[in-house]
Amino acid sequence: MSLEVRPVEGIGVVSPGDDVAAILEGPLRALEPRPGDVLVVTHKIVSKAEGAVRRIVGDEEEFKKRLVEEVASSIVRRRGNLIIAETKHGFVCANAGVDRSNAAEGTMILLPEDPDRSAHRIRTRLAHSLGIDLAVIISDTFGRPWRRGLTDIAIGVSGLSPILDLKGTMDWSGKQLEVTEVAVADELTAAADLVMGKATGIPAALIRGYTGPRREGRASELVRPVDEDLFR
Amino acid sequence: MSLEVRPVEGIGVVSPGDDVAAILEGPLRALEPRPGDVLVVTHKIVSKAEGAVRRIVGDEEEFKKRLVEEVASSIVRRRGNLIIAETKHGFVCANAGVDRSNAAEGTMILLPEDPDRSAHRIRTRLAHSLGIDLAVIISDTFGRPWRRGLTDIAIGVSGLSPILDLKGTMDWSGKQLEVTEVAVADELTAAADLVMGKATGIPAALIRGYTGPRREGRASELVRPVDEDLFR
Repeated sequence: MSLEVRPVEGIGVVSPGDDVAAILEGPLRALEPRPGDVLVVTHKIVSKAEGAVRRIVGDEEEFKKRLVEEVASSIVRRRGNLIIAETKHGFVCANAGVDRSNAAEGTMILLPEDPDRSAHRIRTRLAHSLGIDLAVIISDTFGRPWRRGLTDIAIGVSGLSPILDLKGTMDWSGKQLEVTEVAVADELTAAADLVMGKATGIPAALIRGYTGPRREGRASELVRPVDEDLFR
Repeated sequence: MSLEVRPVEGIGVVSPGDDVAAILEGPLRALEPRPGDVLVVTHKIVSKAEGAVRRIVGDEEEFKKRLVEEVASSIVRRRGNLIIAETKHGFVCANAGVDRSNAAEGTMILLPEDPDRSAHRIRTRLAHSLGIDLAVIISDTFGRPWRRGLTDIAIGVSGLSPILDLKGTMDWSGKQLEVTEVAVADELTAAADLVMGKATGIPAALIRGYTGPRREGRASELVRPVDEDLFR
């Protein structure tokens, strides 16, 4: 099985009230999508379309700090201007997902209210307009403890199992695998980021060839419950 | 720019003393590699070839626990049988990288002594035998705090910059990007895992189309210095 990861080009600027699925339709048609292809969309255009943005009032740094504290459900770590916070979705990330990059002038972007619902809505609308059932992942860029650099991960999922469960599967030598849960939605999202880029204005990618299990799925399945977590 | 991720098939069982580059050469030739393609190899076959394995003596669980404590440079967290430890390379992971999956009967696999050196050696030998300069990444499977499921990440790199530095780059609207360091080596490794799989006996993948900056590079650049780390 090979994987092909292609940028979805030709998506213009997205504004509050826009229909993301309608905006994606034309650029996707140009790639001749097939059933089972995985569409990865950066949350930035989803948040903008849904109006999950705030107009900056007063001092920008001070505004951002207050906004982060407002949208965070808890603060995990704080050092200088950096706040690592848990969002109401259960994601742990810098600034609770509040970000200025690729925001319209004078605004800041928040995470979508319910990224799994957003993914489901985009998938349903594209199934209607294209006549093709794609899996849809909504992405954001998160840092990690212990490792430098950021990677894109899945914050919304519809149409695939975000975790591939290998429990009971044997390795090549016939022993049970010790690693049993692979975060495939995050791996697909990381692959997509390599063709999207942060500075290129390409907010989506289409992946062909992924053969993992399909079901409704939710990115919230990727959130580790607090009682299993050694770092919260 | 599109990315193509292909499994390297036809690699047999690897044993201590084997030359990994020689074993990879034939299966790679079948994929008609080109200069700049990125080869991702699971550390399991590198560790085996380099003899980074231990024969289990006595009770398996007890042996593993002692081995983890021996190879760990520090213990970060402990809960029941689970040990999150820092390795001498600076990686923070479960059991300091000690693993039984895909190990020969009665043995456990360690991380390679110096995975960056291993990657450089494989790259140099393949450049000689194939006449093509590939980038080489050695992978392992790590868990993450806060998120369920594991993903593959880069523990050895040769021939590309593991971090794409976007400092000073503008976003689509002309503002400086807030996110400036992308862990591209980890994203390439995650993409590769999707075609390798843990249970399929395919320990390598070849990625075509990655256009990021090339230099010697080292996965050790991905290790966050302790004084920048909020979680150690």
